[in-house]
Amino acid sequence: MFITLEGPEGAGKSTLQRSLAEALRQAGHEVVETREPGATATGHALRQILLESPTLPARAELFLFLADRANHVDELIRPALFQGAIVISDRFADSTVVYQGDGRGFDRDALRAWNHFATGGLAPDLTLLLDLDPEVGIARGLKGDRMDQEPLEFHRRIRDGFLREAEQEPDRWVVLDAARPAAEVHQAALSVVQGRLSSAAKNLSNS
Amino acid sequence: MFITLEGPEGAGKSTLQRSLAEALRQAGHEVVETREPGATATGHALRQILLESPTLPARAELFLFLADRANHVDELIRPALFQGAIVISDRFADSTVVYQGDGRGFDRDALRAWNHFATGGLAPDLTLLLDLDPEVGIARGLKGDRMDQEPLEFHRRIRDGFLREAEQEPDRWVVLDAARPAAEVHQAALSVVQGRLSSAAKNLSNS
Repeated sequence: MFITLEGPEGAGKSTLQRSLAEALRQAGHEVVETREPGATATGHALRQILLESPTLPARAELFLFLADRANHVDELIRPALFQGAIVISDRFADSTVVYQGDGRGFDRDALRAWNHFATGGLAPDLTLLLDLDPEVGIARGLKGDRMDQEPLEFHRRIRDGFLREAEQEPDRWVVLDAARPAAEVHQAALSVVQGRLSSAAKNLSNS
Repeated sequence: MFITLEGPEGAGKSTLQRSLAEALRQAGHEVVETREPGATATGHALRQILLESPTLPARAELFLFLADRANHVDELIRPALFQGAIVISDRFADSTVVYQGDGRGFDRDALRAWNHFATGGLAPDLTLLLDLDPEVGIARGLKGDRMDQEPLEFHRRIRDGFLREAEQEPDRWVVLDAARPAAEVHQAALSVVQGRLSSAAKNLSNS
């Protein structure tokens, strides 16, 4: 099972990733925690370029995210899924559609096609959106990456973009209210994942 | 004027670049010599990743070349052209169509579209193809990059790909026989460039 966490910085993705992985391991599952960009050695080098090149054109930024993704899928995600692990990634292809599409203004259909090429067609089984009002996120204090220098209006477009993506694929996306306490968000997320795992197990035993 | 040099390793592109730049400078032109991948600081970091990641998927490799190109165009080529320099690049977008298309098997029309996006629509005014039989190139000794590990059949596809590109856009491409001595190749290239420069000057004075 391939799970992705999406949403803005400051919404609690990494906290949820840790607690979810812990709970699933206690339930006997093998869990691999990963993230984009920068999960592999090559990805780490790419992430450094993204962080250290303030004048990088948005087109180059996009291609670096796609390069990282192609490598991430082949080197880490697919092998882990093949071995039966639950893979939880902090960000994946949807972040590109929203940040580079809604955020930077690139054509979203082109971005989807490029994602499809970069991932070799791999899509998440479940995407948890940590939805948060941008003003609350900013008040919580964002990490110092490139996107955080953007104005509030940019972060509003990002939020709307994620909600639209969630609406377009309701079977894959589950929207969680990230303004609630972390323990409540965790419980909501865990029950969604457990539900998916038990239907997957039922489907297996019926087949 | 934007000039690109294309062809396999070992055909003498860098030798021609140096002699051509020297001759044009002596004729009073400002000349910027550059190359792909790796001309800018960011590009250098990307080139290191390309050289040091033997397991990099071909999809990731492609996106790194495109990221390098987008940055190269914005940071170096366009500003130099804007200041009136002649820019000579050792490889550019055509290398991607041929190496990733003919070589790696990716769709050439998709590669052309991605090049168009990466370059922001910038195309060379003149492309000099240093055409060489792959067996001669290998006998001359190739540099130790990723592509040189490929079998002879791969290098034959590359040669055919470059020749096809040249045929499809005969106004932009000039094919030079790279098996000839470097001084002859230089003279042939220089007279082509001088011819283009004097017609460009005539067009300017007529307008």
